[in-house]
Amino acid sequence: MKRNPLITLTTDFGLEDPFAGVMKGVILSINPAANIVDLSHGIESHNIREAAFFVGTNYNYFPHRTAHVVVVDPGVGSRRRPILVVTENHYFIGPDNGVFSYVYEKEKAMLRVYHITADHYFLKAKSSTFQGRDLFAPVAAWLTGGKDPENFGTAITDYETIYLPVPALADSSVTGEVLHIDKFGNSISNISRAVIDDLLNTNTGGTLQVFLGSREVPLLEYYGQSSDKGLCAIINSSEYLELFVNQGSAAKDFAISKGDPVALKVGG
Amino acid sequence: MKRNPLITLTTDFGLEDPFAGVMKGVILSINPAANIVDLSHGIESHNIREAAFFVGTNYNYFPHRTAHVVVVDPGVGSRRRPILVVTENHYFIGPDNGVFSYVYEKEKAMLRVYHITADHYFLKAKSSTFQGRDLFAPVAAWLTGGKDPENFGTAITDYETIYLPVPALADSSVTGEVLHIDKFGNSISNISRAVIDDLLNTNTGGTLQVFLGSREVPLLEYYGQSSDKGLCAIINSSEYLELFVNQGSAAKDFAISKGDPVALKVGG
Amino acid sequence: MKRNPLITLTTDFGLEDPFAGVMKGVILSINPAANIVDLSHGIESHNIREAAFFVGTNYNYFPHRTAHVVVVDPGVGSRRRPILVVTENHYFIGPDNGVFSYVYEKEKAMLRVYHITADHYFLKAKSSTFQGRDLFAPVAAWLTGGKDPENFGTAITDYETIYLPVPALADSSVTGEVLHIDKFGNSISNISRAVIDDLLNTNTGGTLQVFLGSREVPLLEYYGQSSDKGLCAIINSSEYLELFVNQGSAAKDFAISKGDPVALKVGG
Repeated sequence: MKRNPLITLTTDFGLEDPFAGVMKGVILSINPAANIVDLSHGIESHNIREAAFFVGTNYNYFPHRTAHVVVVDPGVGSRRRPILVVTENHYFIGPDNGVFSYVYEKEKAMLRVYHITADHYFLKAKSSTFQGRDLFAPVAAWLTGGKDPENFGTAITDYETIYLPVPALADSSVTGEVLHIDKFGNSISNISRAVIDDLLNTNTGGTLQVFLGSREVPLLEYYGQSSDKGLCAIINSSEYLELFVNQGSAAKDFAISKGDPVALKVGG
Repeated sequence: MKRNPLITLTTDFGLEDPFAGVMKGVILSINPAANIVDLSHGIESHNIREAAFFVGTNYNYFPHRTAHVVVVDPGVGSRRRPILVVTENHYFIGPDNGVFSYVYEKEKAMLRVYHITADHYFLKAKSSTFQGRDLFAPVAAWLTGGKDPENFGTAITDYETIYLPVPALADSSVTGEVLHIDKFGNSISNISRAVIDDLLNTNTGGTLQVFLGSREVPLLEYYGQSSDKGLCAIINSSEYLELFVNQGSAAKDFAISKGDPVALKVGG
Repeated sequence: MKRNPLITLTTDFGLEDPFAGVMKGVILSINPAANIVDLSHGIESHNIREAAFFVGTNYNYFPHRTAHVVVVDPGVGSRRRPILVVTENHYFIGPDNGVFSYVYEKEKAMLRVYHITADHYFLKAKSSTFQGRDLFAPVAAWLTGGKDPENFGTAITDYETIYLPVPALADSSVTGEVLHIDKFGNSISNISRAVIDDLLNTNTGGTLQVFLGSREVPLLEYYGQSSDKGLCAIINSSEYLELFVNQGSAAKDFAISKGDPVALKVGG
C-alpha cells in the first residue's frame, strides 16, 4: 500500500491563533496527499533549545522519509538562512539557528544540509514575518510531493549549532542539569541512559545514587513504585534520568527549575 | 469507497509536550492508512473519571469499528493490565483502571475484554513510563490494520470498574451532582434525560423544578431563552441536565464546583 | 491525483472538552474521505468578531472548494439561521450572526448565501445546544461529499453582518485601532497595506510615521531589525500594520489593548 507522505510541525505558535492551521492549508494546496501531524505548537516563544530537544528525542518514532518542519525562529526575516537537512531516514526543514543540533549529533554518519534558496517554491508574500507559511510549509509540501532535496538550494557545511548542555563526567559520578519540565511536572535531566551505562561499566558492582542538589533521591523502575508524595527518579521513556512525584508534580512540590543540578554517583 | 481506519486519542498529556504527536508517529509507522482524531488531550492529570465520562458520552458519534485509545494511567508500568475492549461497533484500548466503565454499562449486551499480553506487537522500550507510545499506540495500529482482537491476549471478566456517581431516585424527585464543568463554565450533572423521563412517567401531569442546593433554577430549551445573567438549566447535547448562564460562566458566576448537589422535583 | 475534500474548523470550544473531536467523528461518519484541519478552537468565548477576522484573513490559503465551518454561536438554538455561504472558490458554514462579514466584503463579486433548512441532513438530537455537532458538521460532510449547495436550503439576501471597524482616512493620515493581539503579544491594527498604499499614492514622496496614541513608533521591514526591546511597527503577514517588540510582547511591555488607537501620517 502506498503511504501518504508525512509532515510533522513543531512551532512556538500556540493553538489560539490560526498560524498552524494556515500552514496546513498551504501544504495541502501544494501536496493534497500530505498527512500532517502536530508534534507540538507549545514550544515556549523563541525557545530554540526546547524545540531542538523535542524534535531530537522524537523524530525517530516517525516513519522513514517524514519531513519535520520546525518553526521557532526569533530571526525570521533577517539574514539567517532557511535550511533543509537530509539524514539517512528523515528530512528536517526550518531556520538555521541551531534548532537541529540534536539531529546533527545523532546523524553525523549521514548528513546533508542545504541552504534553501529556490524561491520559486515559496509563496509570494510582501511581508517577511511568517516564513512558516510562506517558505517552510511550501518547501515541505514540494519535497514530500517528490522534488529532490537538490532542487531547493546548495549544500552547506557551516550551519549553526547551539550549545547542548552535556553532563560533566568524573570517575564515579556524573553531574547534569534539569533540561525540561513536562506537563506533569516531571523534571527531565540531560543525563542519558548511555551515560549511566558507561558509568556502571567503569564501576562494576557499584550501586547508583541520584541527587538533586544535595538531596538524595531514590531511583525506581516505574512511577507506581513510589507509594507516597516523595521525590523519586526514573530513567524515562526518552532514555533520560527524570525526577518525578507519583501522581504529583516534582517541579511544583520540590521547587525544581530548569538548570537545577542533578547528579549520579556510584557508591561502593 | 474504502474507509480509512479511524483511531481516536483521549489522554491527560496536554498539547505542550510532544507525547500525543509521537503516539501518532508510532501509529502511522505501523498502519499508514490510519486516520487519527484527537478527542481530548486536556483531561485533568490522572483523572480517570473525567476520561471515562468524555469517552462514554462521545464514542457513539464515531464510525463503526473506530478504535478509541485512552491513556489516563496513573498506574503506568505497574501490574495493572493493558486491555482491549470489543463492543458491537467499537474498540477501546487502554489501562484496566476503570476508564471504560461507562462503556461497560452501555454495552453490556455485547462485550468482550482482553488482557493485552502479546508483547511482540509492542515497541521495544527499556523504560515503562510511556505505554501510550510503546503499547497502546502500536496495538491500536495493528488492530485497525486488520489483526483480530484475539491476537492480542486472552479474554478476562474481572476487569476493573470505577464508581460512577448515580443520582438518587425518590418517588417524585431525583438528586444528583455536578459531574463536569466545561470550557464555557457550563456545569453538567449526572442526571440523564432517561432518568428525567422516568420521573415524568411516574408523575404524569407534574411540572419539573430544578434546584442547585436550595436555589431554584428555571429549566429552558436553549441558551438564548435566558435574557439575563441568571442561572438556568437545560438538558444538554449529551442528554444530561446542565446548569448554564447565557454568554456567561455558571461555574464562575455562581461558584459551582464538581460534586455540588443538583436536584429535580416534580411539583403538583 | 484525486484530492480529498478539505474541511476547516474554527470554534470557541477550546481543546480541553471533546467538542471539536466529536464534530470530526460526525463528519467522518458521513464523509470518510474528508480531511479536517483545525484553523483555531481558541476563539474567545462568543467573540464573533475574532472568529470573523481569523477566517477572513486565512481562508484564501486553503485549496479551492474547502468548506470552512465556523461555530462561534452565542445564539445557538434560537431563531438565528444556520447558513451556507458559497463564493467563487470556497464554502462557509455557520450561524447567521455576522461571522462571515469579511468574506462578504471580499467576495462581493460572486456570493450566494443559503439558509440551511434541509433537516434530513442533520443529526436527530433532542437538545439544541450543540449545532456544531448536529447541524454544521453534517452539512459540511454532505456538502464536501458531493451534494449541491441548493440541496441545503433557499437563497437569502438579508444575512447578518457585523460592524468591522474601518480606519478613518484623511488627506495625509489614517487612524485605526488595535484589532487583535496574538500569542506573541503582537498587536495587529485594522490598517491594511492597501490603505497605506493609497495614502502613499496621494502623498508622493512623503515618508510614513506610525503612532500608538501619541507615541511615535519606527516602521521596520522584519522583526530582527529591532535590536532592543523598543516598540516597533511592521506590515505583517496578513498585510496589516502590526506593533511588535522583538522577542518580547508589545501588548504586555507597552500595555496595549484591543481598541487602542493606531495612526499613520505622511510627513513632508
